[in-house]
Amino acid sequence: MWQLFQFPLCPFSRKVRLLLGEKGIGYELVRESPWEQRDEFLDMNPAGRTPVMRHRDRDQTLCDSWAICEYFEETVEKNPMINGSADNRAEIRRLVAWFDEQFFGDVVAPLMHERMRKRLIYRQPPDGRVLREAMRLANTHLDYIDYLLDHHAWIAGATMSLADLAAAAHISIADYLGGIDWLAHAQTADWYRKFKSRPSFRPLLAERMEVIKPPSHYEEADF
Amino acid sequence: MWQLFQFPLCPFSRKVRLLLGEKGIGYELVRESPWEQRDEFLDMNPAGRTPVMRHRDRDQTLCDSWAICEYFEETVEKNPMINGSADNRAEIRRLVAWFDEQFFGDVVAPLMHERMRKRLIYRQPPDGRVLREAMRLANTHLDYIDYLLDHHAWIAGATMSLADLAAAAHISIADYLGGIDWLAHAQTADWYRKFKSRPSFRPLLAERMEVIKPPSHYEEADF
Repeated sequence: MWQLFQFPLCPFSRKVRLLLGEKGIGYELVRESPWEQRDEFLDMNPAGRTPVMRHRDRDQTLCDSWAICEYFEETVEKNPMINGSADNRAEIRRLVAWFDEQFFGDVVAPLMHERMRKRLIYRQPPDGRVLREAMRLANTHLDYIDYLLDHHAWIAGATMSLADLAAAAHISIADYLGGIDWLAHAQTADWYRKFKSRPSFRPLLAERMEVIKPPSHYEEADF
Repeated sequence: MWQLFQFPLCPFSRKVRLLLGEKGIGYELVRESPWEQRDEFLDMNPAGRTPVMRHRDRDQTLCDSWAICEYFEETVEKNPMINGSADNRAEIRRLVAWFDEQFFGDVVAPLMHERMRKRLIYRQPPDGRVLREAMRLANTHLDYIDYLLDHHAWIAGATMSLADLAAAAHISIADYLGGIDWLAHAQTADWYRKFKSRPSFRPLLAERMEVIKPPSHYEEADF
């Protein structure tokens, strides 16, 4: 049995969990707070980041969400998530990188810092200016996703792919932390509504990070 | 013919160019300064980052160094750089992510900011404290690479892989910007010496960024 080391608001762990869910791969969750820099965790992953997956029976460890997703994509055929022609696959990976780098850097990282790390670790109030800038950028990102969804049913093309899983992972954390204004984004809201009812996503939405509460619409399929 | 949009000190473009060189794929360089946010460049890559590759005859554009490397790995068989078992491939990708995220964030990004962007864009002197911290972290990173090379001939195993190309790309930029102290790192220096004489690497080492000069040992195979 695989173990997955993560904390409830880690977007990179969510991306991996959505992939595992869609492919029907079982795993056991292990709570890890990477900011505590636990020695045993650093021994498994010197980068000190979640997610990490470990298979104890095989003494096997996988680190880094990109490497983990490619590993399961290569080894488990069910529901391919990086599929189609080489061009399609390049477009899927471009968009995964977009969410993991641009959306994460502009929106999720500042929200996590202001609303999670400052509360749990530094005991400081959030900086309103940083929060407003993250929400402004979230808005321009959702404009871009609206545009992508104007052209095809899913983020990277006609079928669901790892780009959708990465998008849902990052957007759900931003939404948990109150950073998404859904009103002006009908296409993205429609896509996210569909996504929220998937069996791979429901258990993630039911989880809570200690102390920090999501807005009331967060878990609802109809928001 | 492929065009590759980049600037001489972009480590992510170097990683792609090393892969293209090892696979024998021809391309034409186009100088792009992403900080100028040129409209035509943003139309090709909304993320505004180098490298971008364009094939004009086919009206095809590839963005993001991860997506580009996987694309050529999938479409050009010669000299596979993400090879071996699924476990080997996961280890190669973990280490590519290590260099693109940890090494870049700890070492290359601060050196580029202090010694390149401040000089070319902001006309400010570098911050000595930031430079010293980047060089201290470069030292701990090279300790880790020494350790990896104690165990096998190349960074991720018995054969050369994309992990070596990523490592050489990032280390060469840090070295250009005077951030590497080679004295205490015999294993890494040996590996890098071998790498420097490869035909895929020589043309990169001969290029210069305007105004900024590398240290005298930078291009020498025997340093």
